[in-house]
Amino acid sequence: MLTAVYPGSFDPVTCGHLDIIERACRVFDKVIVAVLINPAKEPLFTVQERMEMLAGATRHLEKVDVESFDGLLVDFVRRRDARVILKGLRAISDFDYEFQMASINRKLDPSIETIFMMTSNDYAFLSSSAVKNLARFGGCVRGLVPGNVEAKLKNKFSTDRR
Amino acid sequence: MLTAVYPGSFDPVTCGHLDIIERACRVFDKVIVAVLINPAKEPLFTVQERMEMLAGATRHLEKVDVESFDGLLVDFVRRRDARVILKGLRAISDFDYEFQMASINRKLDPSIETIFMMTSNDYAFLSSSAVKNLARFGGCVRGLVPGNVEAKLKNKFSTDRR
Amino acid sequence: MLTAVYPGSFDPVTCGHLDIIERACRVFDKVIVAVLINPAKEPLFTVQERMEMLAGATRHLEKVDVESFDGLLVDFVRRRDARVILKGLRAISDFDYEFQMASINRKLDPSIETIFMMTSNDYAFLSSSAVKNLARFGGCVRGLVPGNVEAKLKNKFSTDRR
Amino acid sequence: MLTAVYPGSFDPVTCGHLDIIERACRVFDKVIVAVLINPAKEPLFTVQERMEMLAGATRHLEKVDVESFDGLLVDFVRRRDARVILKGLRAISDFDYEFQMASINRKLDPSIETIFMMTSNDYAFLSSSAVKNLARFGGCVRGLVPGNVEAKLKNKFSTDRR
Amino acid sequence: MLTAVYPGSFDPVTCGHLDIIERACRVFDKVIVAVLINPAKEPLFTVQERMEMLAGATRHLEKVDVESFDGLLVDFVRRRDARVILKGLRAISDFDYEFQMASINRKLDPSIETIFMMTSNDYAFLSSSAVKNLARFGGCVRGLVPGNVEAKLKNKFSTDRR
Amino acid sequence: MLTAVYPGSFDPVTCGHLDIIERACRVFDKVIVAVLINPAKEPLFTVQERMEMLAGATRHLEKVDVESFDGLLVDFVRRRDARVILKGLRAISDFDYEFQMASINRKLDPSIETIFMMTSNDYAFLSSSAVKNLARFGGCVRGLVPGNVEAKLKNKFSTDRR
Repeated sequence: MLTAVYPGSFDPVTCGHLDIIERACRVFDKVIVAVLINPAKEPLFTVQERMEMLAGATRHLEKVDVESFDGLLVDFVRRRDARVILKGLRAISDFDYEFQMASINRKLDPSIETIFMMTSNDYAFLSSSAVKNLARFGGCVRGLVPGNVEAKLKNKFSTDRR
Repeated sequence: MLTAVYPGSFDPVTCGHLDIIERACRVFDKVIVAVLINPAKEPLFTVQERMEMLAGATRHLEKVDVESFDGLLVDFVRRRDARVILKGLRAISDFDYEFQMASINRKLDPSIETIFMMTSNDYAFLSSSAVKNLARFGGCVRGLVPGNVEAKLKNKFSTDRR
Repeated sequence: MLTAVYPGSFDPVTCGHLDIIERACRVFDKVIVAVLINPAKEPLFTVQERMEMLAGATRHLEKVDVESFDGLLVDFVRRRDARVILKGLRAISDFDYEFQMASINRKLDPSIETIFMMTSNDYAFLSSSAVKNLARFGGCVRGLVPGNVEAKLKNKFSTDRR
Repeated sequence: MLTAVYPGSFDPVTCGHLDIIERACRVFDKVIVAVLINPAKEPLFTVQERMEMLAGATRHLEKVDVESFDGLLVDFVRRRDARVILKGLRAISDFDYEFQMASINRKLDPSIETIFMMTSNDYAFLSSSAVKNLARFGGCVRGLVPGNVEAKLKNKFSTDRR
Repeated sequence: MLTAVYPGSFDPVTCGHLDIIERACRVFDKVIVAVLINPAKEPLFTVQERMEMLAGATRHLEKVDVESFDGLLVDFVRRRDARVILKGLRAISDFDYEFQMASINRKLDPSIETIFMMTSNDYAFLSSSAVKNLARFGGCVRGLVPGNVEAKLKNKFSTDRR
Repeated sequence: MLTAVYPGSFDPVTCGHLDIIERACRVFDKVIVAVLINPAKEPLFTVQERMEMLAGATRHLEKVDVESFDGLLVDFVRRRDARVILKGLRAISDFDYEFQMASINRKLDPSIETIFMMTSNDYAFLSSSAVKNLARFGGCVRGLVPGNVEAKLKNKFSTDRR
């Protein structure tokens, strides 16, 4: 059984992420979406909220599990008996960062492969930060995030806004 | 009448910005320089100071108006009856960010076009942050910022310095 | 009256080109699509065929004129009393080449501005060569080129094929 | 069974290609190395020679089949009942071209996924053309191509040289 | 005597930095490794610690001096009677930033040249931040930093960790 | 004595090349400009003409020797007792190619270092091909090539033109 781990912050999950997850389900037997717990960053949504949004957005995909992890990614991948790290590539700016991570993860465990899938052109310039900025100023995020995330974003900013 | 909105932080305006504004005046009937009020960032100069420096630096350009805005850029563009967002492109690193913004703005209002002009080679690697860093350490910024900004930068750092 | 010249080989025109032309019509008063006569290259279609395909594909756009030119682009722009050269930017690989050309054209005539518009994400990775390769091997080009070009491509390769 | 098709010119296969093939064998059940027959290019080695070198270099890899194809890649992938196209990514210059191809192949058959693996840093700047240039001028290609290819390259250029 | 100044944060020095320093010793008569004192950043190691680690890692290189500086780099270079600023180039993302700095330094003092050396492929995607992230989560940094730094990193995070 | 070899086609030498040569003279004791004899390319000027134009353009620089070479660059560098290959970096598109060459040359002879200098912003987008295209269509190349080259280009194209 070929299991891929798809790691990220998913703060929140976008349609670009979902697009990669759906494609991955056509290739792998199991796809673990792994939410990184990063104490150094201040996310908009808690890990719990992010996992719930992911679970809601991937309900139609039987092969998907949503989990969280802290520490080193390769340790998590090994604990799940997976051999593949899956990353989406969008615009050129992802490239260097993703290659750096892949390079370091390869050094840490050469038996784990990082595999890249290309984000659909429709979402080529989409990111979680862009979506948050948009929602913060009352912009419409329909079509950029899954339906359940759209509602959560609206709530978050109507509550937070002075 | 073809009006272009040229948005930015302009903290402070550089000769690279001014170069774009001057070129824009040769193409458009009116150029609104729009200073973004971004509560999430801590600028060196207040919005008021930035607008005054811009007004001073563009005094010779009749087609230019200097304004400020908060919220979504496309909303501001619509309120001004403009159809064009103008951005300068410098080195490669601008490219991805600017394309992301243009892509999102197009989604928000497909009737507004983003148009790019190429910064002169002389200022290809110039940015407001580079200028501030230089001034902070007492470096000469002549030729990198308009004359009126040079004085303001000197004041700012002679006052602020320990 | 603000006239933009949109130069290229258009061998053949793609939906990406057409997308730029349509956007340009929303900004400029007149858009001259200018087919470059380049004796150094061996095109698939003659200049005459390329102009006819462009004329067919832009029939719904009143502001568009289709012309051809040889020699220096800036000379042609001046002869047409235009002030603006319009170029589409797609993926990163366009960037350097387009900046080189804009830089040289600026040197040749500083009164002419080069302006860039961003190709729609849908066509971000589309080029005339890609389309020709596809058609050569019998691939379907629907949605990549205007309808009238699709037919011409099919003819060209059914005739040319061994 | 998850089958990946790894297409290319392989004129000749390099250690960078072999590195990708070896990694792919750890992820996929079967890896078909597919030599493109491109009448438009003048290769150094014939398709037959390229396939023999690939077969020799992958003898230790049971999951690998070496084949050739002409026409559209997606047609070949479908005929082999594969769902995955595998490409190696090296330096930034690969990126745009590979994304263009992936984009077009996705349009031609959305059920086929293109997957990218990162070439080892050791071979990050290696290409078949670089290897050929090196061999042409008598440079040592040991460590850049598999052993059996080294000999073939030497023969080719000692015969060909004036 | 040709002296090169190699500036940086070195928080901490990596094998990629050391690789550049060793190459520089083959070209220049003297190499001054200059640790930037940047009050705006919060480093992991103090300037004193960073200089000690550098001194330890370059003990075998007679031509190397380790120093610290604040203020403008070109002022420091002049005070040391050097004519050359040395920078390492890794992946594409360095490029724009380094060109911006070189461009500004050239403006400040045209008699000082910035010279770039290419980081070995082995360290092409290595950075001080990547190393710190790795160490923070207990990952092995052997081969990424000099031996003396490895120990320091371990100490730092075992002390700091909650 | 520190000798740098600056290799290239120089078909013809541009002001960008000359800028690099002048900077190099401030750093190195001797600068050998090495014209590559490449039988695979069809140059506009013969090797002899290119060397003469280089000699003319560098007459004021005592440290410069102009030579030609064929075969492997590292062999030529060794025969001249040099330790340094010098290359100019312009826009991003140079980067990958230059890193590939540097990487291969390092493999062939690890004792030879490749060093990069940044082309002046004024010539950031200048290339020999751009200059030739310009001259071919009667465009003015003053300021893009040294004075002696300007005349040669004019002759070449007035003779060649039907």
